[in-house]
Amino acid sequence: SRPQPAVNFADRGMSLEAEINASNAYYLATNQAVIHKKPTPIQLVKVDYPKRSAAVVREAYFRRPSTTDYNGIYHGYYIDFDAKETKNVTSFPLKNFHQHQIDHLAACLKQGGICFALIKFTRLTAYYLLPASHLITAWQKQAQGGKHSIPLATLKQVGIPVQLGLHPRLQYLSAVDQLIARQKGVNHE
Amino acid sequence: SRPQPAVNFADRGMSLEAEINASNAYYLATNQAVIHKKPTPIQLVKVDYPKRSAAVVREAYFRRPSTTDYNGIYHGYYIDFDAKETKNVTSFPLKNFHQHQIDHLAACLKQGGICFALIKFTRLTAYYLLPASHLITAWQKQAQGGKHSIPLATLKQVGIPVQLGLHPRLQYLSAVDQLIARQKGVNHE
Ligand SMILES: [Mg+2]
Ligand SMILES: [Mg+2]
Repeated sequence: SRPQPAVNFADRGMSLEAEINASNAYYLATNQAVIHKKPTPIQLVKVDYPKRSAAVVREAYFRRPSTTDYNGIYHGYYIDFDAKETKNVTSFPLKNFHQHQIDHLAACLKQGGICFALIKFTRLTAYYLLPASHLITAWQKQAQGGKHSIPLATLKQVGIPVQLGLHPRLQYLSAVDQLIARQKGVNHE
Repeated sequence: SRPQPAVNFADRGMSLEAEINASNAYYLATNQAVIHKKPTPIQLVKVDYPKRSAAVVREAYFRRPSTTDYNGIYHGYYIDFDAKETKNVTSFPLKNFHQHQIDHLAACLKQGGICFALIKFTRLTAYYLLPASHLITAWQKQAQGGKHSIPLATLKQVGIPVQLGLHPRLQYLSAVDQLIARQKGVNHE
């Protein structure tokens, strides 16, 4: 059989975060949205300040982020989401989330934000936008003896598929448009 | 003369960032807004992964942030701002800003965000919210031979004073309410 074009091999190995960052750079350059990845929080312990050169961090530790990966603004809407990859092929495990992230999404949702998880099934090269409302419900049910994962079949029902294209490759703002349309009239003026 | 209450001495030395963080914690706890400081971006060079303990950063450098200090959501509005302190007593020097920050504020403003600088005159214990539109204009004029600072008198005219109170001490959302009222009908649905 003929080999796939080289670009597909490259894309296949691209992390979801790298794909989203590329989309965000495109959306920013084309004045469509301003959405950035938040830096990883670091606990500084020892910093050297050498003369005539830049400060050097000599001891520091990674802290667990208290919020989500991404936020920003799109068409006047506050956008907030976390990116999650799974190698599973039939469901998305909820253990990928932490209580802090769920609380943060719930708080932003309450303020009228457009909040979701952007989930990539790496082995299927399939992407879904899962509205935070559904994620929060599944999370709460889990504590009451509910499932520890969201079946792919459920994601196909309540989620919004994210399409791949050329510019940008990961066209997630189209899925966001659909989420906004769903939420409109519910909690946005 | 009688000494001031101890709390005032403590507050006097509090950095603007610490004051804003305290306000944000209060606003979050009381479900009024979800606004966070973004972590400082760090360029990692060397990270050790010792067995049975946490990863340790052994060499890293501070990167200049490409956006602003704070963003989040309040009443459905995207909020984006930078905090700046000055020891000056008659004007605010524009050199406190970088081109990246101005570009970021301009891009967020274009998307309908509520964008501003929160300026503290440390020697006056005076705080002003300067709308991004005015900041951007002053910045652009500077490149065309304009002033390198914004006079306090101008800030009193075009800015919105931020009041101190008890809970939270720095009541900056009241100033944000006034900025929203100004912008309403201009670029928010
Ligand atoms: Mg993530
Ligand atoms: Mg600052």
